[in-house]
Amino acid sequence: MTRQEMLYEGKAKRLYRTEDEQVLWVEYKNDATAFNGKKKASLDGKAELNNEITSLIFTVLEERGIPSHFIKRLSATEQLVKAVTIVPLEVVMRNVVAGSLARRLGLEEGTPLKEPIIEFYYKNDTLDDPLVTEDHIALLDVATREECQQLRTMALHINEVLKALFAELGVDLIDGKVEFGRDADGSLLLADEISPDTCRLWDHATGERLDKDLFRRDLGNLQAGYQNILSRLRGAHA
Amino acid sequence: MTRQEMLYEGKAKRLYRTEDEQVLWVEYKNDATAFNGKKKASLDGKAELNNEITSLIFTVLEERGIPSHFIKRLSATEQLVKAVTIVPLEVVMRNVVAGSLARRLGLEEGTPLKEPIIEFYYKNDTLDDPLVTEDHIALLDVATREECQQLRTMALHINEVLKALFAELGVDLIDGKVEFGRDADGSLLLADEISPDTCRLWDHATGERLDKDLFRRDLGNLQAGYQNILSRLRGAHA
Repeated sequence: MTRQEMLYEGKAKRLYRTEDEQVLWVEYKNDATAFNGKKKASLDGKAELNNEITSLIFTVLEERGIPSHFIKRLSATEQLVKAVTIVPLEVVMRNVVAGSLARRLGLEEGTPLKEPIIEFYYKNDTLDDPLVTEDHIALLDVATREECQQLRTMALHINEVLKALFAELGVDLIDGKVEFGRDADGSLLLADEISPDTCRLWDHATGERLDKDLFRRDLGNLQAGYQNILSRLRGAHA
Repeated sequence: MTRQEMLYEGKAKRLYRTEDEQVLWVEYKNDATAFNGKKKASLDGKAELNNEITSLIFTVLEERGIPSHFIKRLSATEQLVKAVTIVPLEVVMRNVVAGSLARRLGLEEGTPLKEPIIEFYYKNDTLDDPLVTEDHIALLDVATREECQQLRTMALHINEVLKALFAELGVDLIDGKVEFGRDADGSLLLADEISPDTCRLWDHATGERLDKDLFRRDLGNLQAGYQNILSRLRGAHA
């Protein structure tokens, strides 16, 4: 398998074609961005950390009955994935109040939710990724109402598995964002990445932040937090 | 029935107690506000216009099978209503893209929707009345999931009746906001007002705005637009 022309460059990854049209080559970047790209930095080692963390998480999810686009890790910063057409929705799973939920509803960060909640955001930088309802999603024609139900069910399942996985590692999954794609048959498949860039992860004992809030809110060294998560995942997966 | 102490002063109305605890006395104000109170004016005659328009609309709705808190119009600017506890949600019914929907989704104002959509906004000035999902509403404990379903069904019904009523008058109901209250039994009842303050109403033939966008966007004389709506409603109800 060889890397061919670049198809897309996002904030955190580049996607390349391969000679197999069903397979894409992903290269993680060191770039960290927040607030829809308004805050930016290049952080040495971030690409390696997120590539390995995502690879480990997608492997565990597969073992626990949740397939994804992930095929295999190729190198420190690269992986192969199945080619899918990304559904332009960020599906957010929440277990504890934080971030935009705290701001939107005027609730205190850290308040546990009685039951997990799912939110959909329309992936559109110009519009600042707005919160959308299932009526909006149907109107935008990005997913049918049946697909919304399926996305919700899949996200709740992923949330349960991730929450249990991190709990075993002494980490609380506060919230997380997942993305899905449609394969050649039109079936929905977990895609993108799952890493401390896309999840809020707090040390269960100390509440220490081990995720992108380290960068977003200048709370400490991002790489140290991500390395902490990676070390725990490696230990569990060894 | 006499007017007793004031219970509440909102942006557009004052609410007073009466000697019957099941009945409130409403006084409409001439104040026009937009953008969560950031734009304000006092417009002579607005109180009379909205009091009469709301009274006519609630009377027509009642005749067409949709009860509300409305009891009767008392004077040019006053009416009696049943005392209810307002559910702190703005329930928005949309038939054509306009206003915040155009901005949120990047759609062109004036685009008809294939089917009406319902949105819920949390009534909270500090938070700027954010869009909320049914998960958020359950979390905030302002309505149960069953009540959300009921609010959605009631709003769609009200929308159908209002759309038909205005269509007979040569007016397109673009969108509208309704509020509901719980009566002493906990049953949901249409409340607040329905007027050009709370609905976008466009002349079907010319597209002329006959609603609060006249004030919000400085498109023309608010009272002339509201008087136009009132005259058509009076004609239909004569």
